[in-house]
Amino acid sequence: MICNNLSVSDNGHLLFAGLDTVELAKEYKTPLYLLDEARIRERCRTYLSAVKDAFDGNAKVLYASKAASFKRIYEIMKEEGMGTDVVSMGEIYTALRAGFDLSNAYFHSNNKTDEDIAYAMTAGVGHFVVDNAEELYAIAAEANKRDIKQKVLLRLTPGIDPHTYAAISTGKVDSKFGSAIETGQAEEIASLAMRLQGIDLVGFHCHVGSQVFDSDVYLRASDVMLTFIADMKNKYGFETKELDLGGGYGVRYTEADPEIDIHANILSVGAHMKEKAAALGIVLPTVCFEPGRSIVADAGLTLYTVGTVKNIPGYKTYVSVDGGMTDNIRFALYGAPYTLFAADNMSAPCDMKCSVVGRCCESGDIIQENVSLPGTTKRGNIIACLTTGAYHYSMASNYNRLGKPPVVMINEGKSYVAVKRETPEDIANLDL
Amino acid sequence: MICNNLSVSDNGHLLFAGLDTVELAKEYKTPLYLLDEARIRERCRTYLSAVKDAFDGNAKVLYASKAASFKRIYEIMKEEGMGTDVVSMGEIYTALRAGFDLSNAYFHSNNKTDEDIAYAMTAGVGHFVVDNAEELYAIAAEANKRDIKQKVLLRLTPGIDPHTYAAISTGKVDSKFGSAIETGQAEEIASLAMRLQGIDLVGFHCHVGSQVFDSDVYLRASDVMLTFIADMKNKYGFETKELDLGGGYGVRYTEADPEIDIHANILSVGAHMKEKAAALGIVLPTVCFEPGRSIVADAGLTLYTVGTVKNIPGYKTYVSVDGGMTDNIRFALYGAPYTLFAADNMSAPCDMKCSVVGRCCESGDIIQENVSLPGTTKRGNIIACLTTGAYHYSMASNYNRLGKPPVVMINEGKSYVAVKRETPEDIANLDL
Repeated sequence: MICNNLSVSDNGHLLFAGLDTVELAKEYKTPLYLLDEARIRERCRTYLSAVKDAFDGNAKVLYASKAASFKRIYEIMKEEGMGTDVVSMGEIYTALRAGFDLSNAYFHSNNKTDEDIAYAMTAGVGHFVVDNAEELYAIAAEANKRDIKQKVLLRLTPGIDPHTYAAISTGKVDSKFGSAIETGQAEEIASLAMRLQGIDLVGFHCHVGSQVFDSDVYLRASDVMLTFIADMKNKYGFETKELDLGGGYGVRYTEADPEIDIHANILSVGAHMKEKAAALGIVLPTVCFEPGRSIVADAGLTLYTVGTVKNIPGYKTYVSVDGGMTDNIRFALYGAPYTLFAADNMSAPCDMKCSVVGRCCESGDIIQENVSLPGTTKRGNIIACLTTGAYHYSMASNYNRLGKPPVVMINEGKSYVAVKRETPEDIANLDL
Repeated sequence: MICNNLSVSDNGHLLFAGLDTVELAKEYKTPLYLLDEARIRERCRTYLSAVKDAFDGNAKVLYASKAASFKRIYEIMKEEGMGTDVVSMGEIYTALRAGFDLSNAYFHSNNKTDEDIAYAMTAGVGHFVVDNAEELYAIAAEANKRDIKQKVLLRLTPGIDPHTYAAISTGKVDSKFGSAIETGQAEEIASLAMRLQGIDLVGFHCHVGSQVFDSDVYLRASDVMLTFIADMKNKYGFETKELDLGGGYGVRYTEADPEIDIHANILSVGAHMKEKAAALGIVLPTVCFEPGRSIVADAGLTLYTVGTVKNIPGYKTYVSVDGGMTDNIRFALYGAPYTLFAADNMSAPCDMKCSVVGRCCESGDIIQENVSLPGTTKRGNIIACLTTGAYHYSMASNYNRLGKPPVVMINEGKSYVAVKRETPEDIANLDL
């Protein structure tokens, strides 16, 4: 099993976080997002203890909430002592409603509107991660209006290519995000931030990409960033207080994905950075990590009900389920791999190769191709798609006016609703 | 200009349906979906008059509402005398709220759940377009429970490849949709439908794909379907009352897309089908067309505000706007082409090549690459993306907890809100 929260009951049902997924499908109906609260907390603690050990406590872990943003998740992050990233008024509002202390929040995005900036300052967001000069001027203007100094980090691109999907590779020089060190634009915006009234420049940020398994990427990125920090000290006497290395550690969508030892990885990044800082003659700033996917992805699972099994002789077998690209757009977008199980028939031989497809009126509405399921699969059977805790609920749409599935969390053997199922009435709510 | 509802004012502003887009952006804020009501009505009338002329009145036009589904659009369809396709409880509910007579509705989808079927029957949906045998049994069971006979059409795959994007190509034998004529499965489900109690088989449906410019595709598809209909008559004595040829006529996203003369096209399809029916010795059934995109696409336009213009020397220039893959997923999904304009600066030379990207925290969040905009473009400028009336609002997501833009309609020189802007409160509405 690709995560330790999965097992099989004697009657051949898939258990998730100790609960029978078939019973959960019956209770809450399908499609259904499940999230394992204990696994989320375990992942937070893994990161928190890793950065404590690696950086002698001089480090922060910020949950990148775009991976899965809803009220309950911010409550859990608050309880675990995590910081958080937010990227919009919607995420800020939700964190506020959860009682999350926004002084521990970092406001990301490559394009913050004037309205966003004012909203975030009113909400008391602690740090702005600034992407570009226009944004920096707009933040300074709003800060001056309020007579405050806004803490900012500057997003830089270190020129590292993590060899992941092009769509989620962000550390390269040719990126919509940040300012490139290579082109001198990083230094330009840094020196601007140092002198702009209303701006308190506390440090720098980079993010090399997503679903990264190669820890070498972080070593290379931190080298580039620490060298830049030393440059800023030498040229401007600027003391960097925070260095945010972003997120990106990969998770297991299939057995082919390696399991990453986060603790060991971060320890080696820490040791490497201490050495590098010493060699450069600088004090190592507070180091931030921003895991999103690796906090929630394998804490999640989606349940579907089969509607039809269609064998087209000489071509293919299609298994249609009651969800699709509306609740999981990642295959359609990236051809992303997933592991699927016959949740109510785990002991049957998986002797049928098929494409598991969604219910949307679109041929590209595919959950996964080349899936092996039992040949007995038919209307009414339950299918589980694993590792759907990140970028599923958060990317869900109402295409075909389908309602978003509810998010049901499991904790200590009990399930509870964190986000309610969207009804037709909810969807048409804003129609005049 | 790719559509006749576009023009330019003396002060260099883009006019849409006669109104100044810059003023509309100011009034309603951005991102903003605009829809030209007159253009939608004009397109409905074009189809209605075409089928009347081509089939001597023995034809129907059904608006495929998945292209853009909200209350106001069903009101317009009702007023124009159009039928409609619906694909979910959400679309059925919305059509009901608009007072649309659902006896003129056709219920599509490759996977109708038992709940959907019961909901649609209670709502009085006139026709079910049945995809597969499991669904047919489920419909028969529900109909028998209610002691009614449900009118159904069977969705068949005629084996026509329209050479469009794989993701929106649906008439091939290897498809998640329908039953293939080639494999004998179409005949199998037809003979089942003829004898199942509770089922009133009225005809057959096919859909060859989307964004089709080649009318030859419809001639070939209708040949296959009419031959099948003749077969059913000869083998089973079955009289087909309706033949639904689906939708698919293409629209102009760029100047490179040809303009289709819908009237002439459908006339030629009609003439061809009459000949073919005569040759086969059958009466031509009522013919249905299901345009979605070609009713609403070029009646729509999206307005954005620029947040930053980032030139990376030696690489590329990025223009970030305040929307993105949340309101337009089609470039990320299909690499779909679009025409973009500097709405507030139409007379300036477009001397800057750039990528127009969204505000989501994802590198693949691109509206369009290789766009030409004025070199003076900067924060605060307004960008228009054309031909966004179909599959934009309907596919919109809340990724990054961004609210969906409002849909503002324009009619007779006046604008009005058809769908309100989604606020942070709306998005977090179902969070517990």
